[in-house]
Amino acid sequence: MDKKDNVSMAVIRRLPKYQRYLRELMQNDVDRISSKELSEKIGFTASQIRQDLNNFGDFGQQGYGYNVKDLYKEINTILGLGEAYNIVIVGAGNIGQAIANYTNFDKLGFNLKGIFDVNPKLIGLKIKDVEIKDIDDLEETLQNEKTDIGVICVPRANAQNVCDMLVSNGVRGIWNFAPVDLHAGENVAIENVHLSESLLTLTYMLKDGK
Amino acid sequence: MDKKDNVSMAVIRRLPKYQRYLRELMQNDVDRISSKELSEKIGFTASQIRQDLNNFGDFGQQGYGYNVKDLYKEINTILGLGEAYNIVIVGAGNIGQAIANYTNFDKLGFNLKGIFDVNPKLIGLKIKDVEIKDIDDLEETLQNEKTDIGVICVPRANAQNVCDMLVSNGVRGIWNFAPVDLHAGENVAIENVHLSESLLTLTYMLKDGK
Repeated sequence: MDKKDNVSMAVIRRLPKYQRYLRELMQNDVDRISSKELSEKIGFTASQIRQDLNNFGDFGQQGYGYNVKDLYKEINTILGLGEAYNIVIVGAGNIGQAIANYTNFDKLGFNLKGIFDVNPKLIGLKIKDVEIKDIDDLEETLQNEKTDIGVICVPRANAQNVCDMLVSNGVRGIWNFAPVDLHAGENVAIENVHLSESLLTLTYMLKDGK
Repeated sequence: MDKKDNVSMAVIRRLPKYQRYLRELMQNDVDRISSKELSEKIGFTASQIRQDLNNFGDFGQQGYGYNVKDLYKEINTILGLGEAYNIVIVGAGNIGQAIANYTNFDKLGFNLKGIFDVNPKLIGLKIKDVEIKDIDDLEETLQNEKTDIGVICVPRANAQNVCDMLVSNGVRGIWNFAPVDLHAGENVAIENVHLSESLLTLTYMLKDGK
C-alpha cells in the first residue's frame, strides 16, 4: 500500500472524507457497505468512489461491497496515520490554542511537543499539559527532538521567518494558518488553511441573493 | 459584472487568492502588472490567469497588462464584497473566538451581530464589544434582524441542529467548522473548513519520508 505518485491531489483530498465516513460506520457497527450505499452517505457517485479507491488497490468485492474495517485501516495507512508525528505550534493565539486543544491529536498519532509565542502574557500558561514557551526557545526544541510538523499560527509578517526556522531545523511538514503563501524547498510539504479565502468563497455563493 | 453560473468552483476558489495578491500590490503602490509578472508572484501560469479572469470580463490590455486597482475592485465585486453581511457565530470556543477576533471582518463588510454558546462560563464575556449570549437567545436574534451568514463552531453532534435553526430563520450562508457534512436546502450555501481533513492531507504528503 504505497503512495502512488500519479494520484491527483483531488483524489488525495477526498481520502480524509472517506476515512471520516468509514469511522462513523464502524462506530455504528456497520461491517460492510456497497459503493452505492457509501455514495448515498458521502455524496460522491458510486463510480467515483470505485475509481478513487482503485488508485490504491483492489478493495471492494463484487456482490459484497467493502469491508468497512479493512477499508478504514487501508485508508489510514495510505494517509500516513499509524505513524507517530512530532508537532510544534508556533503562535498561541486563538487558532494556535484551538489546534492545541484538538481532541483527536493523540488518537491520530500526533505528539504535541511544544507551543511557542512571543506574548509574555501567554508564555508559561498550559494547554493540555503543554506549556507555552518563549519563541526564542523554539530552535532549541527543534534541535533536541526531531519534529515532523510545524503549525504556523503567527501574523502574516512573521510567517515566512518562522517557516524558514522550522525547515532549517528539519521540519518537513508545514500546516500554515497565516494568510500568506510560504516558500520552502521541494522536499517540504505545505498545507494552507486560508480562512479568509474560504469566507470569500461563501460570499461569492451568497451574492446573487443579496 | 454578474456571477456566471458556468464558472467552475475551481476558478471561484482561486479568486480570493487573486484578491489577496492584488491587495498586496496596491499596498506596495504597484499600479499595473502583466499576467506574466502576476504569474511569477501567485504561482499560477500566465495562461491560467488570463483564462480565469476572462470568465468574468475583459480586464487586461495587450502590452499594458492589468490595472491593479481596477482589477482588485472588479474581483471584490465578483466575490460579493462591498455588500454588507450580517453574521452570527454559534459556539464561542477557540475557533469561534478566533473568527470573532478576525481583524478584517469590519473592513470586508461583515457585521458581527452575535456570538452564542451554551457554556455559562463564556456567556456574558465580550469579544471585540460583542457579548457572548446564551444559545437560547439565538432564534430571537435571528428573527429580529436579517442574518446572512451563520458560523458553526459547535461540536459535531449539535452542528446539524444549529444549521437547521439558522436556515429556518433565513440564514442563507453557512460557514461550517464542525467535522461533519451538513444538509440544508438548495438555496443555502455551505462552506466547510474541515481542519482534520487538511491535516490528514499533510500526513499523506509527509508519509514517504517517514
